[in-house]
Amino acid sequence: MSVHTIEFFWDPASPFTYLAATQIEALAAECGAELRWKPFLLGKVFEATGNRPPVSVPAKGKHLFQDLARWAKFYGVPLQFPKSFPVNSVQPERAAIAADKAGKGVAFAKAVMSAHWADGRDISQADELKAIAASVGLDGEAIIAATQDPAIKEILKANTEDAIKRGVFGAPTFFVGAEMFWGNDRLQLLGAHLKGKLAA
Amino acid sequence: MSVHTIEFFWDPASPFTYLAATQIEALAAECGAELRWKPFLLGKVFEATGNRPPVSVPAKGKHLFQDLARWAKFYGVPLQFPKSFPVNSVQPERAAIAADKAGKGVAFAKAVMSAHWADGRDISQADELKAIAASVGLDGEAIIAATQDPAIKEILKANTEDAIKRGVFGAPTFFVGAEMFWGNDRLQLLGAHLKGKLAA
Repeated sequence: MSVHTIEFFWDPASPFTYLAATQIEALAAECGAELRWKPFLLGKVFEATGNRPPVSVPAKGKHLFQDLARWAKFYGVPLQFPKSFPVNSVQPERAAIAADKAGKGVAFAKAVMSAHWADGRDISQADELKAIAASVGLDGEAIIAATQDPAIKEILKANTEDAIKRGVFGAPTFFVGAEMFWGNDRLQLLGAHLKGKLAA
Repeated sequence: MSVHTIEFFWDPASPFTYLAATQIEALAAECGAELRWKPFLLGKVFEATGNRPPVSVPAKGKHLFQDLARWAKFYGVPLQFPKSFPVNSVQPERAAIAADKAGKGVAFAKAVMSAHWADGRDISQADELKAIAASVGLDGEAIIAATQDPAIKEILKANTEDAIKRGVFGAPTFFVGAEMFWGNDRLQLLGAHLKGKLAA
């Protein structure tokens, strides 16, 4: 039996990525798919594609808060809008890559998104990142130091360039092979695809 | 027992509105809600809000076709991308209002969206609108004549202004009282709301 792999391009600055991250592991398990978490920089993707965040349209931004709150209730997960929004996610993403090299990539990814979107913490700050690293059993100082490692920086850059090359314009974005799915609101289509229900 | 009313702001130029229109009656029935179809002009809403259609971002436009095809398969409904996209929907919307006055508003709305998105017909053309009107038992010539009636024009203008005033920035948009839901992909949240599952 062939096993699908879901590539999950995530950026902790994106609230819909947080929401999707609370659901994707259960969906992958239900569909027997493997999950690969790929940190990337949504801001660079916006620059490259000309796409804009929803808050750039006032009426859309106004609705966004209500929409996010509904999703959180629908999923039964906590959510608050951080004072530090939109957060600079370069350091948290580099830290996630360092955490991955230390064998705790997924735990760190979930913890950093939860710190930001459930607890409202400013994850651009080194002290917060150290505490998050420690909470998943990592050496916080070592993780912060690793964010300055050129090899770590390069992985984040490469993930972002790979995303742009493959047509990504927002977050979260999922790939199953060449099939791209954009948005927390496409998880039901992703699930249907993995179950073979969208075949021509 | 209080019965919810869903106001459904629709524009046949919008593919996601067509998709939602294939589902909304069943959802309303399931939730015991009444449904009120409100034609409005999405183009005017884009002008007023600064929002832009997805195709205005090339990477987004490229993905749009695949995304729409997936939704159509997911729902089990036909879909083709009309050669006349983006269609000028002023005449079809006025015709829908005239059809409503003749007691066939919903039948016409569904027929005009299906003609455009399932059959690829150019619904800006009077001959097409006449045929669509006839297909739901209306006098096509009378409907076309009514599109020039100032009272009909005024209703479309008023619906559009009402939408903008209430925060609409895209289509489809649904209201349940003051609660706004935007997008075909929010039907599951609309259903959850109607069933009281999103209460604080």
